Amino acid sequence: MNELIDKLIQGKDDRILGRILSWVENNIEQGKAILQKIPHFYPSWVIGITGPPGAGKSTLTNALIQLLVQQNKRIGIIAVDPTSVFTQGAILGDRIRMSEFFLHPNVFIRSAASRGNLGGLCGSIVEMIDIMRANRRDVIIVETVGVGQSEIEIASIADITLLVLVPEAGDDIQAFKSGIMEIADIFAVNKADRTGANTFVQNLQNMLHLRNFTADVPVVKTVATKKEGIQELWDNIVQIHQSIQKNETKKQQLLQQKIERLLQKELWLRIQKRDIGKYIHTTNITDLNIYAVVEQLLKESVS
Amino acid sequence: MNELIDKLIQGKDDRILGRILSWVENNIEQGKAILQKIPHFYPSWVIGITGPPGAGKSTLTNALIQLLVQQNKRIGIIAVDPTSVFTQGAILGDRIRMSEFFLHPNVFIRSAASRGNLGGLCGSIVEMIDIMRANRRDVIIVETVGVGQSEIEIASIADITLLVLVPEAGDDIQAFKSGIMEIADIFAVNKADRTGANTFVQNLQNMLHLRNFTADVPVVKTVATKKEGIQELWDNIVQIHQSIQKNETKKQQLLQQKIERLLQKELWLRIQKRDIGKYIHTTNITDLNIYAVVEQLLKESVS
Repeated sequence: MNELIDKLIQGKDDRILGRILSWVENNIEQGKAILQKIPHFYPSWVIGITGPPGAGKSTLTNALIQLLVQQNKRIGIIAVDPTSVFTQGAILGDRIRMSEFFLHPNVFIRSAASRGNLGGLCGSIVEMIDIMRANRRDVIIVETVGVGQSEIEIASIADITLLVLVPEAGDDIQAFKSGIMEIADIFAVNKADRTGANTFVQNLQNMLHLRNFTADVPVVKTVATKKEGIQELWDNIVQIHQSIQKNETKKQQLLQQKIERLLQKELWLRIQKRDIGKYIHTTNITDLNIYAVVEQLLKESVS
Repeated sequence: MNELIDKLIQGKDDRILGRILSWVENNIEQGKAILQKIPHFYPSWVIGITGPPGAGKSTLTNALIQLLVQQNKRIGIIAVDPTSVFTQGAILGDRIRMSEFFLHPNVFIRSAASRGNLGGLCGSIVEMIDIMRANRRDVIIVETVGVGQSEIEIASIADITLLVLVPEAGDDIQAFKSGIMEIADIFAVNKADRTGANTFVQNLQNMLHLRNFTADVPVVKTVATKKEGIQELWDNIVQIHQSIQKNETKKQQLLQQKIERLLQKELWLRIQKRDIGKYIHTTNITDLNIYAVVEQLLKESVS
């Protein structure tokens, strides 16, 4: 165990990282033991990238990787988005469509199944991030599809949440109105060489102003396929990160959310071990008061 | 309390229903007590209606209400979708854009906030359905926005899940591929008077065949604004319901999922009462091993 942890921390053997991530993802005991033993102080930047399918999140992530690789950063990618080019492996067996950095020694790409039992986000995302942190990844990018609850969840985990939109997303902005716009620390309007991009950016900025957000949320135009706007995007991320570092409240809030999430999951795993079936199978279903059953199950003690 | 329950069951006073739904939605003790006392045997049909924003879910729901009202059915609507015309009230204060059946004596429409702490679906949806069941609603329709996790959740609660798509949704089908298509018991291709509708239906049917679903999933064309295809849609729902009634496994499965959901929520409410803050505020954040904190919190007992 300690040898494994040493190797994880040295960060030289990607197979070790991959194996431990699998344990953690599948809630295997060894993974849990490792999480309790490893150091959690490595100052990784955790960046959530979210947005609707087709916005170009993967291409943008790829462009960011290129920039960060040039800066000699060690990068970890967790792709939860089922439509991401990075996650095809998770969906279509093992035929992973490769990122151009898939084999780069400083880049580790991991896909994760998006359907956990705890909302839209992979059930072990907090733990997977912390394993990558112990593995001394300078930047950890979590890509999720931003059409439901998962981008709200990622915002409660990531240091910085980047919402990627495209100029055609006019209608989507309406759909996003309640909840999703608020969680972005920064916007990328990708495919910004398309007609209507400037109007879209203007509308977006107007909407952000109208909604009276406490901080100015940057909107950056990018063309990920041509690697345009990537440096500006990163500069903005750096600036946001600096301000977060000074914000103790935000740091404590993130920590609290992480702990709540872990607790919730742990309790859920315990529920799954209970024999709910005995109530369902021994009673006439139509007579069953499930609220009384729940009380009973809770009384049988969860601890 | 018993007087309230009597009135709820008589089903004559909508204000009583509204008040109890509020208690239940907000996890107030009285609501819990009522849930444990009321009968749960009324054979309501619970239908989940989901689909992307703009597919016309509300209009289709409206058309279904019209059909059911003519059959003298008592109907309950729970609108979780933040983009639904039924839920504008939940989002924009109290300015509810009214359905034409809003004041019909046999129709009760309730909007519910979509962002709970348990994934995309309102945290009290199971309980709200059961209150409506006790209120002797023949058909209970739950409308959710189908762009993330919530439609997978609704499928674990509703007897029948209807997925509403529009012919232009070509790209969306790709995005929906992993998980969302599978949960539908029936499809409505709405706005079927648009060009490309037949091709879309054909593609959809081909995809459903290719994916080797166990049962034939009906695809019905509708034009909700013109009330076209509504009778055929309902006939198909009736048929599906008949086959479900014979399926003990499915009924037990639904029950188990409901119990798990209630347990999960109850545990979550207990977590929220714990003082996580004391760990965060008394320790140097960077030294904190949150996995050890979680162990500690669990040891302090959850019961």
